[in-house]
Amino acid sequence: MTIRNVTIIGGGLIGASWAALFLAHGLHVTVQDSDSVAEARVAGFIRRAWPDLVALGLASALPDLARLRFVADPAEACRQAQFIQECGPDRLDTKQAILRGIEAGAPAGTPVASSTSALLASDIQAGARHPGRVLVGHPFNPPHLIPLVELVAGRRTTAETMDRAQAFYESLGRAVIRPRKEAIGHVANRLSAALYREAVHLVAEGIASVDDVDRAIASGPGLRWALMGPHLTYHLGGGEGGFRHYIRHLGPTQAARWRELGTPELTEEAIAALIAGVDAELAGLDAATLEGRRDRALVGLLRLKAELGL
Amino acid sequence: MTIRNVTIIGGGLIGASWAALFLAHGLHVTVQDSDSVAEARVAGFIRRAWPDLVALGLASALPDLARLRFVADPAEACRQAQFIQECGPDRLDTKQAILRGIEAGAPAGTPVASSTSALLASDIQAGARHPGRVLVGHPFNPPHLIPLVELVAGRRTTAETMDRAQAFYESLGRAVIRPRKEAIGHVANRLSAALYREAVHLVAEGIASVDDVDRAIASGPGLRWALMGPHLTYHLGGGEGGFRHYIRHLGPTQAARWRELGTPELTEEAIAALIAGVDAELAGLDAATLEGRRDRALVGLLRLKAELGL
Repeated sequence: MTIRNVTIIGGGLIGASWAALFLAHGLHVTVQDSDSVAEARVAGFIRRAWPDLVALGLASALPDLARLRFVADPAEACRQAQFIQECGPDRLDTKQAILRGIEAGAPAGTPVASSTSALLASDIQAGARHPGRVLVGHPFNPPHLIPLVELVAGRRTTAETMDRAQAFYESLGRAVIRPRKEAIGHVANRLSAALYREAVHLVAEGIASVDDVDRAIASGPGLRWALMGPHLTYHLGGGEGGFRHYIRHLGPTQAARWRELGTPELTEEAIAALIAGVDAELAGLDAATLEGRRDRALVGLLRLKAELGL
Repeated sequence: MTIRNVTIIGGGLIGASWAALFLAHGLHVTVQDSDSVAEARVAGFIRRAWPDLVALGLASALPDLARLRFVADPAEACRQAQFIQECGPDRLDTKQAILRGIEAGAPAGTPVASSTSALLASDIQAGARHPGRVLVGHPFNPPHLIPLVELVAGRRTTAETMDRAQAFYESLGRAVIRPRKEAIGHVANRLSAALYREAVHLVAEGIASVDDVDRAIASGPGLRWALMGPHLTYHLGGGEGGFRHYIRHLGPTQAARWRELGTPELTEEAIAALIAGVDAELAGLDAATLEGRRDRALVGLLRLKAELGL
């Protein structure tokens, strides 16, 4: 069954970005939000995001907002849904309450993918009437530009649900991964948290400034990680022997570094140092300008990777 | 004093890449290597790297190899040097022996920057006749494309040496950071090691495959880290409240994830799983093809960032 009708629960930043992506792929999109300002906010986001979707070859000049509708009631919003992307607040009791609202209206077999970054599908689906169709479909901000979607099954999620969700996201050009076990933070946010823990350690210990850390990543390993992950990066770092050589000969150096890594706490002092460092780094640059540059660069980067088969 | 004559100690992969960068900036480059095959290897590397340097606007159509010479004896190689980039094997006794060879020929004030990723400047400079001119100038592979250079002073390195080295690297368009304290792995490799430790944990625990981890990075946060570091990324993730909002409201979620991160060991079993995973991910793709795509993409990415002021 080809999916044509998608419902998004929650018209915040993530919901609006999903809406732009779904619309660009020709879907009919219902956004549920009880806040009456959501409609203007989501429509505004879509208009701003649209040129990037056109540049990526996903959309034509103007968004067809006739395919977008807003509904306040969750059950009503889900009645025609063939796929539901839940983007509510990231608290378990809230997610479970939202799920009850969805189940009051949604057809029984419709997958319900939660955008949660902090919760597990097993916990969200506990108490659901149809737990088998509940999964995690975690995007990265902004979802209309960053291709990654992490699909994670809860203990009661059916394989059919997982396969249908994967086929759906892949039809939208998403890069899907399916971790085999649930874990707090899934995969990408765990890797990000590991990196950031050491970033906070370096700043808190006075080894490096916030600006040093950001520059080190964005002018160093971050450039490579945009193109390939750490394993393939080390494969190329291993010379003719490839990853085998790297892990056998330089692996011990890695492990030695692991033992040196810090375990900082987010104390008031550390938080103050981080905030002061970010202010110094920004030097007055406003977030909208920075975000605009990032999004233009993401579009260019995605096109570049597609051209080169990366 | 404008630097025109640079000596590179060691004609391996890193030395050859530095040589290409220095030549592209019009410098006279002496490469010291006791292995007679180094000359052909370095010249071959430079010819292959040259089109990327042309694409970056750093070089004209053909490399001027008349500005490149090879010398086997370290003292002789350093006699005219105004800057020395040491790229020998990354072991302390070897580095100290290399430094004795350099000091036998180099003018007393010439900075000696070590490309070391594993050692500290304080240890390398111990026992030197002129320790004040010894520092770490750590690049990222490949140095002719990745802009980051980490400048780290040893206990006895002079401020003048640091300033001269910074001015030199910045004249080559490098993104210089100056960490305030020595630390194993400097800054970028510590951040990389922190990320990789969790990557190994995820694979070893069967949570994610090698391919999942690499795809999660390269289709997810890696795309953003190529454009800005983690602090600015979280600044944009904090919405209207920016980094202040992020760290106060989502910082506790970060800290909760930190407590969940793994502390894997590189056991034979883990190494076998990593190697098998990389083989599966590569599916026969050869390293030369992958490296070529990476380097084309790095050139495009660097141009894109420069255009957008990132």
